Amino acid sequence: MAAADRISAATHHLLEANADDFNKAGAEGISGALLDRLRLTEARVAGMAASLQKVAALEDPIGQETAAWEFENGLQLTKIRVPLGVVAVIYEARPNVTADAAGLCVKSGNAAILRGSSYALRSNHAIGVEIATALEQTGLPGDSVQIMQDTSREGARQLMQAVEWVDLLVPRGGPKLLAAIAAEATVPVVIDGAGNCHIYVDASADLSMATEIVFNAKTSRPGVCNAAEKLLVHREAAAGFLPNMYEKLAAAGVLVKGDGTARSIVPQMEAAAESDWPVEYLDLVMAVKVVDGVEEAIDHIGRYGTGHSEAIVAGDQHVADRFVAGTDSAVVFVNASTRFTDGEEFGFGAEIGISTQKLHVRGPMGLDALTSERYVVRGEGQVRV
Amino acid sequence: MAAADRISAATHHLLEANADDFNKAGAEGISGALLDRLRLTEARVAGMAASLQKVAALEDPIGQETAAWEFENGLQLTKIRVPLGVVAVIYEARPNVTADAAGLCVKSGNAAILRGSSYALRSNHAIGVEIATALEQTGLPGDSVQIMQDTSREGARQLMQAVEWVDLLVPRGGPKLLAAIAAEATVPVVIDGAGNCHIYVDASADLSMATEIVFNAKTSRPGVCNAAEKLLVHREAAAGFLPNMYEKLAAAGVLVKGDGTARSIVPQMEAAAESDWPVEYLDLVMAVKVVDGVEEAIDHIGRYGTGHSEAIVAGDQHVADRFVAGTDSAVVFVNASTRFTDGEEFGFGAEIGISTQKLHVRGPMGLDALTSERYVVRGEGQVRV
Repeated sequence: MAAADRISAATHHLLEANADDFNKAGAEGISGALLDRLRLTEARVAGMAASLQKVAALEDPIGQETAAWEFENGLQLTKIRVPLGVVAVIYEARPNVTADAAGLCVKSGNAAILRGSSYALRSNHAIGVEIATALEQTGLPGDSVQIMQDTSREGARQLMQAVEWVDLLVPRGGPKLLAAIAAEATVPVVIDGAGNCHIYVDASADLSMATEIVFNAKTSRPGVCNAAEKLLVHREAAAGFLPNMYEKLAAAGVLVKGDGTARSIVPQMEAAAESDWPVEYLDLVMAVKVVDGVEEAIDHIGRYGTGHSEAIVAGDQHVADRFVAGTDSAVVFVNASTRFTDGEEFGFGAEIGISTQKLHVRGPMGLDALTSERYVVRGEGQVRV
Repeated sequence: MAAADRISAATHHLLEANADDFNKAGAEGISGALLDRLRLTEARVAGMAASLQKVAALEDPIGQETAAWEFENGLQLTKIRVPLGVVAVIYEARPNVTADAAGLCVKSGNAAILRGSSYALRSNHAIGVEIATALEQTGLPGDSVQIMQDTSREGARQLMQAVEWVDLLVPRGGPKLLAAIAAEATVPVVIDGAGNCHIYVDASADLSMATEIVFNAKTSRPGVCNAAEKLLVHREAAAGFLPNMYEKLAAAGVLVKGDGTARSIVPQMEAAAESDWPVEYLDLVMAVKVVDGVEEAIDHIGRYGTGHSEAIVAGDQHVADRFVAGTDSAVVFVNASTRFTDGEEFGFGAEIGISTQKLHVRGPMGLDALTSERYVVRGEGQVRV
């Protein structure tokens, strides 16, 4: 709460620091989507403060008893939620991540090492100063949240290998960062990876619902990982669905690519290549494939998906259940937009990232993802026979 | 249940295969503790079958709904337990691990790749044949549990890097294996690491209870990871406790080493060196340190412990609570032996290993450790605003 207050009160100062970052990045020729993420506005600063308040209002996860049982010999076991220790995050030029990550780490009893982009260094530093002051005001060590001033590649490498100090590293970034993590990281990692998200429109779908869901998932914020990138359409629905869907997407500036069958229905589509299927565009581009049914959709997602989020639009509950069981992504939606894969939407207040791996945690990472559970066993002298 | 039946029925055959392994290992000069682990007896084969039956009787974890909530917009979220996929285990010459790991993996819906020691190859192969036959008898693919015939170092390296196929690798072994994992593994790993387990005897301890607990934790099976390796004693309890404790340990063949204060009380102790404190002896050796109280015990464990299991013997509840909160090991015991850190003792039927890392799971790994939890979100056309 103190950090939220301080960030609100420092709005003007934060916007000044951000303007420096923004102008410098602009002068270096940084592109529109990245500049948009970097930019702070009064509303975005207010949003950072609101996220901190939401996280502050969540139930304290630390000390929660997540299980308890008694052994036959009378030993009393409890399973207790505890902090991980030191959580590090490597992220791109989004200053709000600094506040979100700091709030989640402090609320879950962890120290944080935040390594943002060089483009956001002044913004992050200014946010970090407010957080450190708030920590000290409330009797916590100011350096329990640290903003790395070294934003070099070598600095990142050292962080990835600081096995004595880092209990969890969350890398949030593109293919280059993930390749560096795979090659060099020796600390425990939870990957915030690519979102090559699919929507499958079944023959049983309400086609106007499908149109709204696809349009929202593709166009509401095309540069984020929960945006839909691929559209799979049941052969029987294709002729009735694709022409209208195409018109709506094209009118919003989406470049739509199709396989042969899709283009036989909507010839204006560009031809999709094999190389389109595994790609996360993060842009106003969508590739369409016509499939024979839910099994082909499941196979396609199994081959090309990234385990992030998938959706089915279907009226037939059996088909929907089969899609849910057959896909193995962190989040699967039935008759809803993939854009809901988000910590705040999930009720976590904020998120430290979205896990695309299976170990430890999947999907949006809130407070629980920053904890582990250990066992406390109390006895009266029991020994093992 | 079919695998348990087949293993019971094949007892004679398994003992023959094991005798081949045992004789070959003996001829190669393998030491006593390793030979003991390798050896199968009728009782141990019966134990394997009993473990499979216990695992079979456990509740099926797959499909369990572990959480559920509704979004403000009416979206219905459920969190569902699912298999990880393919679980690999690298382990030493303990044939019972083959049956335990196979049972836990199959019960949790996972395929298993089991890479045991070359010393146990015939035993493991014979057990694997019975399991594969049982799988096929019950309509499951026989090769969903595979015993790696290639027990070379290069084969292990390939398994550690099979990122396309392996969802979890559990390495169970000594420092050499863990060093290879740290240097070479690229698949997701949960470390079954060393157990440098401590027992702290407080000034408030019931000293006869402390004697029984230390004796049990050190001598009941000195070659396993949950055996106690270090004894920390409160200065005020040392003179009353150590002479009798020493006599009892020495009479059981334990080599007891002490720091200066301990040796001033029991001069027969050998001198403990700095190099003793981080070591897991896995043998009838124990090092003793006299400390000023619970805080020094906590500091010592923080510096030298391996995060496995620790115990305190104390009558003072406040001191015990402080020890529980101050140590950050997977399992902490109050007035009980460290030897209870074990999947079967915990009620998991068996264990795939004991995690000494913080991510994903800590302590004995049963069925839940072989699963992940994903989200299913059901709607009626909701899109994100």
